[in-house]
Amino acid sequence: MIRGTYCDKKQQTFHSITDLNELSQCKDNDDIFLWVDLQDPTKEELAKLGVEFQLHPLALEDATHEHQRPKIEEYDNFYFVVFYAAHLEAETGELDLREIDIFLSKHYLLTVHEKPIEDLKEIQLRWTRNAQQLHWGTGILLYSFLDTLVDGYFPVVDALVDQTEDIENQFYIRRGQLRERDTALKLLTLRKRFLALRRVVTPQRDILNVLTDHDSPIFDERINVYFRDIYDHIARLADTVDLYRDQLSSTMDANLTLASNELNKVMRTMTAASIILMVDALVPGIYGMNFENMPELKWEYGYFAVLFLMLGLTIGLVVVFRRLRWF
Amino acid sequence: MIRGTYCDKKQQTFHSITDLNELSQCKDNDDIFLWVDLQDPTKEELAKLGVEFQLHPLALEDATHEHQRPKIEEYDNFYFVVFYAAHLEAETGELDLREIDIFLSKHYLLTVHEKPIEDLKEIQLRWTRNAQQLHWGTGILLYSFLDTLVDGYFPVVDALVDQTEDIENQFYIRRGQLRERDTALKLLTLRKRFLALRRVVTPQRDILNVLTDHDSPIFDERINVYFRDIYDHIARLADTVDLYRDQLSSTMDANLTLASNELNKVMRTMTAASIILMVDALVPGIYGMNFENMPELKWEYGYFAVLFLMLGLTIGLVVVFRRLRWF
Amino acid sequence: MIRGTYCDKKQQTFHSITDLNELSQCKDNDDIFLWVDLQDPTKEELAKLGVEFQLHPLALEDATHEHQRPKIEEYDNFYFVVFYAAHLEAETGELDLREIDIFLSKHYLLTVHEKPIEDLKEIQLRWTRNAQQLHWGTGILLYSFLDTLVDGYFPVVDALVDQTEDIENQFYIRRGQLRERDTALKLLTLRKRFLALRRVVTPQRDILNVLTDHDSPIFDERINVYFRDIYDHIARLADTVDLYRDQLSSTMDANLTLASNELNKVMRTMTAASIILMVDALVPGIYGMNFENMPELKWEYGYFAVLFLMLGLTIGLVVVFRRLRWF
Amino acid sequence: MIRGTYCDKKQQTFHSITDLNELSQCKDNDDIFLWVDLQDPTKEELAKLGVEFQLHPLALEDATHEHQRPKIEEYDNFYFVVFYAAHLEAETGELDLREIDIFLSKHYLLTVHEKPIEDLKEIQLRWTRNAQQLHWGTGILLYSFLDTLVDGYFPVVDALVDQTEDIENQFYIRRGQLRERDTALKLLTLRKRFLALRRVVTPQRDILNVLTDHDSPIFDERINVYFRDIYDHIARLADTVDLYRDQLSSTMDANLTLASNELNKVMRTMTAASIILMVDALVPGIYGMNFENMPELKWEYGYFAVLFLMLGLTIGLVVVFRRLRWF
Amino acid sequence: MIRGTYCDKKQQTFHSITDLNELSQCKDNDDIFLWVDLQDPTKEELAKLGVEFQLHPLALEDATHEHQRPKIEEYDNFYFVVFYAAHLEAETGELDLREIDIFLSKHYLLTVHEKPIEDLKEIQLRWTRNAQQLHWGTGILLYSFLDTLVDGYFPVVDALVDQTEDIENQFYIRRGQLRERDTALKLLTLRKRFLALRRVVTPQRDILNVLTDHDSPIFDERINVYFRDIYDHIARLADTVDLYRDQLSSTMDANLTLASNELNKVMRTMTAASIILMVDALVPGIYGMNFENMPELKWEYGYFAVLFLMLGLTIGLVVVFRRLRWF
Repeated sequence: MIRGTYCDKKQQTFHSITDLNELSQCKDNDDIFLWVDLQDPTKEELAKLGVEFQLHPLALEDATHEHQRPKIEEYDNFYFVVFYAAHLEAETGELDLREIDIFLSKHYLLTVHEKPIEDLKEIQLRWTRNAQQLHWGTGILLYSFLDTLVDGYFPVVDALVDQTEDIENQFYIRRGQLRERDTALKLLTLRKRFLALRRVVTPQRDILNVLTDHDSPIFDERINVYFRDIYDHIARLADTVDLYRDQLSSTMDANLTLASNELNKVMRTMTAASIILMVDALVPGIYGMNFENMPELKWEYGYFAVLFLMLGLTIGLVVVFRRLRWF
Repeated sequence: MIRGTYCDKKQQTFHSITDLNELSQCKDNDDIFLWVDLQDPTKEELAKLGVEFQLHPLALEDATHEHQRPKIEEYDNFYFVVFYAAHLEAETGELDLREIDIFLSKHYLLTVHEKPIEDLKEIQLRWTRNAQQLHWGTGILLYSFLDTLVDGYFPVVDALVDQTEDIENQFYIRRGQLRERDTALKLLTLRKRFLALRRVVTPQRDILNVLTDHDSPIFDERINVYFRDIYDHIARLADTVDLYRDQLSSTMDANLTLASNELNKVMRTMTAASIILMVDALVPGIYGMNFENMPELKWEYGYFAVLFLMLGLTIGLVVVFRRLRWF
Repeated sequence: MIRGTYCDKKQQTFHSITDLNELSQCKDNDDIFLWVDLQDPTKEELAKLGVEFQLHPLALEDATHEHQRPKIEEYDNFYFVVFYAAHLEAETGELDLREIDIFLSKHYLLTVHEKPIEDLKEIQLRWTRNAQQLHWGTGILLYSFLDTLVDGYFPVVDALVDQTEDIENQFYIRRGQLRERDTALKLLTLRKRFLALRRVVTPQRDILNVLTDHDSPIFDERINVYFRDIYDHIARLADTVDLYRDQLSSTMDANLTLASNELNKVMRTMTAASIILMVDALVPGIYGMNFENMPELKWEYGYFAVLFLMLGLTIGLVVVFRRLRWF
Repeated sequence: MIRGTYCDKKQQTFHSITDLNELSQCKDNDDIFLWVDLQDPTKEELAKLGVEFQLHPLALEDATHEHQRPKIEEYDNFYFVVFYAAHLEAETGELDLREIDIFLSKHYLLTVHEKPIEDLKEIQLRWTRNAQQLHWGTGILLYSFLDTLVDGYFPVVDALVDQTEDIENQFYIRRGQLRERDTALKLLTLRKRFLALRRVVTPQRDILNVLTDHDSPIFDERINVYFRDIYDHIARLADTVDLYRDQLSSTMDANLTLASNELNKVMRTMTAASIILMVDALVPGIYGMNFENMPELKWEYGYFAVLFLMLGLTIGLVVVFRRLRWF
Repeated sequence: MIRGTYCDKKQQTFHSITDLNELSQCKDNDDIFLWVDLQDPTKEELAKLGVEFQLHPLALEDATHEHQRPKIEEYDNFYFVVFYAAHLEAETGELDLREIDIFLSKHYLLTVHEKPIEDLKEIQLRWTRNAQQLHWGTGILLYSFLDTLVDGYFPVVDALVDQTEDIENQFYIRRGQLRERDTALKLLTLRKRFLALRRVVTPQRDILNVLTDHDSPIFDERINVYFRDIYDHIARLADTVDLYRDQLSSTMDANLTLASNELNKVMRTMTAASIILMVDALVPGIYGMNFENMPELKWEYGYFAVLFLMLGLTIGLVVVFRRLRWF
């Protein structure tokens, strides 16, 4: 699906392109910025665009294959940027990272992605609002684009952080049941998600670093401070991700210690109980012996005395084990 | 809440501003340093200040959102610094990190924060004391500001260090009770706090590094050595935080080993006890058999002999297990 | 086995060399690129080639010994590159890393390897396809060569990643059987393979980095963007390998926690069962005593009452332990 | 306590200063090097010295507060160095790090410390011995000073290394007793000490690095090779500390594994013993039944046969468990 | 023991020096390279040599003390290199690192070491073989020297790697016996050796790096590529050492998991066996009661029925526990 939008720099108005043949006209018009968004394009569509906009075959090839690493590459006539949008799937809680390939030149912005990305609507809105800065060039378009994508990471990271905190908070509540299995699996899942995030966030921070430091004819220098702002946001994200990735290791260790502690207590209690029962069992064992001369057996209330003895032993041992904190 | 103070450089006196309209006059007066402190400002107040002092919209936006990363950013006409004040809440022991956003130009210092920060009173006092260095420019104000904030970290870090040491010291005292659960949780909490501290201390060290190395028209060069002094303090903090973060991992491991050791000893003791009881139980079991020809049963003192046998077995096994260090 | 191919730059045609004496003629012909592939050469063959092409004795020596570290070295008249091809053996799943030593000058490409490498056929195909770029020099040959080798890593890494994910997915399925032993061994094997991959991937990334940044009379500058493309692929590989190497540690920890959890549950259940049996055993123990005065023994249905009592105790304890989640 | 020494460069003689008023004369005399050592000075003494030698207030403030980070700071007229002396307390084995603050200019060396430092006597001796190099300037004094302090670290590190090796060596001796608790605590203590050492050694290495690379009017260039020598010693210390800090983690892990192994063996032995006892107990249990028709009960030697049966079962099971290595 | 060899550059012949007084003549002769090897020299011998060859006192002092860190230091008239030779002691398998201190100038090579080093004979052989490159200067001597020493590391590292692989391979064989204790100790020893190797290999790599990058009047520039070759070998060593040091941690973890797994299985089996025995014991317990009305007791084959019942229970429970994989 190809969707074209062009913006008249002088009149600061945005127009949709209905006929794809208009593209050729738009791309050479200095008064116009062109944004072409390709969702799940066929190889032929991409090849055609490549010819139209004179894109380098290597960049085109990267755009046709998913799972590129976030990167920025400078070609003769354009920049090629690979960036990721992040979302948590509402139902499953799965982390969903969607790749967007961006071609940016002085006159146009091409975006290629496979699945629909909701942030794109938001981006269009922001462009309309920032229309007065359009004479700074396409850099401001890229800024709005990347800023919106990066803003989309915060709810994701916050949700993961909340889940981590929730798990830890459960540690502090006295647990009557065995939960360390579920906790271990949840922590493993969370750690994987933080690792996956880190894998895109760190190189994306490098991209922004390049954009901030970079002098380029494409970007007005007033735009640098804007890229620095995104850089700052993404550096904060990277910090949080690293912090929690580190913290999760400790949490996993704590979970293991708590599980082992829980077991220790139960086993101790049970073993203590079995000791008491064995001591109790010794008494009837003794009076079940068949010796001819066992005076107690003839006592009138011997049987009851023995029952009381057993009760007494039980109570005594319970008290002792309590003192030793084995119950 | 807006609170303005201005300082007459020539007369080295400080005055409160009661009427906010005075701000416009003060900010263009070369003989005056202006400090405006905004506590929990509304968006409108900030916007108005932004217009008055010509603050860049990105810096203003950062100041309206909490949870920025500590950073220093140079704009055309001012520096924007994000710094954190640290306190431990007296009752809960919670680590409380409060963000302060600072705008600094040649003529004014604007500070924006959400909750009241007690260090601010201390800062005002120090300015009055250092009045003779005021002709060095606003850099000395920033120095006093940051130095006071950084000094506030030391009692926090010391308290956390003390808590860590306390927990470790308890290891060395022979523990009769199971405490590894509480210890694990306390260590986890401490580790989290050290991580949280690290997350602000490390970038703040970078801020001071920038201030120390930096040539700027705003800062007199005599001020560099002062910033280096704060840099040094914060580098020491970062060292301590890293040291204890590392040490806490070992402490957690040691706690696990001790817990496992404690369990080992108890289980061994209990299992040994159960062995003794089983051996004891074997004897009456044997004499409870109904064989017609069991000579011992007819012995006059057979019953008592058996009781002594059991006592002897018990004592013997206790001695053996003692030797093997199983008790 | 020596196999020579030469390419006529003007006519863009490829020819096999049947007579090895042709080599001397080909290597001085400016209109020709020469590719000589040596599979498992004898020391004499290598020495002869070394004389023919004036190769430095140190590079020749490196080419005769296997297990070099991936590297690029610039000599006066040629580059010496050590690279690895990666494959998973279909049957055993063993990681198979095969060293290829490459000598590259303006006029020729020499490749030395011990075992047959299948990628080499693929490389020949690609050269034929990219014939129109041959006037860029031998750099494009090296590009095709390295790109094909690097592409060969992706199925290998993907297979290892799949195996890792498989193991983790099994964690989430409720396991009725003890599998932590096998899992631990599989994880250990996987980690070793990731480490082995990392050991060649990281220095190979450095090789590409050198090739990208490098100005050299051998390489046309249009080739740089191609090397950057391979750099990018191999950087992605390195990221993946690092990610999973890190993740595997957590997986191993989780496996240990799960194993311990599994044991905890079984031991608790078993210990609970033994407590129930001991309580049950106490009852017949009591009524096996030989006291003369034990009224219950004379009750008509005493025996059956006792059996019901035991049944009741069993049911009661099962219910209690269920509540405590010990079953 | 203030102790002054001055050295006549021409006559190469050392003199004590008895009257503190001599200081003012000495410090302006180009033929003299002045060393003033302040032990636990009052604030007033320091302030007075600060005025006398024109020390920067920030350096003075650092010298009044303990627990500075090792550092070197260049001021207009002097260097300010914070260094630590290391000792192990003979009785408790506690690591004792004592801070020394050093002010060094072309003409004088001021040293400030709280507790007495024994190395200082040694330093004085070395100065007397190296008197012929005194015309190189005060740098040679600083060299002797730092070299003596760094030499003091080697016995400390060696002692800690020996303690670590001792603990590890005990692992290899078959242990009959439970020691993992003590071992864990000792390892924890050692690790803390290595960490504490690292915290001062690493920045001190940086100080020497600065001194080695540095061009300064205070230091004759012939002194550089001397500082490089100390740098080298302290780099070796840092290596050792890092090596053992790393090794201690493995040792802690090994201790846990050994402890767990020890428990495993004991538990297995004990459980096997309890199985044997239960099997034994089954036999008299059977012959304690009250069935009317139990032919064995009437056998003349039934009772003795049963005793032999029990003995046989015991021996048999012991043999079986031995084979399975459960004993 | 002092052993001198000198080489006549023109005639490319090697001669032993029998009279130590020849040294003075040789060292000033431009047509001669002098190699003096000192094994376990006395302080006086070293001092004498120091005077003869004008060695800096600091370098001499380093040469008198063992356990220097590998390093290269440039003095006015010579280079001072500390390097280590590595061997595994054939009997004990101990890692034996022997320090060699090297003084190298344009005309001579002095080597100082304590214990005999076998590589030295090999080095002499190589010099004779490479005699035609002797006009490149003493650099080629140093190359042969270091290359031989570095080559000596490969069998050492290979042996350690083989031991590590052996231990891991034993994991994959089903183990019937408890070996985790020995395995843990072996792994600990191996890790220590890898750490010790790393401690010398990493700084030695730095030495070669310095030699490769360095321009010096002592070294002909044709020698650089030779040093790069050694650099490459030692970088490979460092990689291997790091790889296995990392891998050993995982192996230790795996060993712990396997040990715990082994225990789990044994404990489960034993506990299951004790449950079966307790169930069995319940039956004779019941029929050992003394109730007057117990109809089964009067059954003719009651006793045998009970024995079969017990047998049945045993078989039934074994089957159930088998199904649950507890056996």
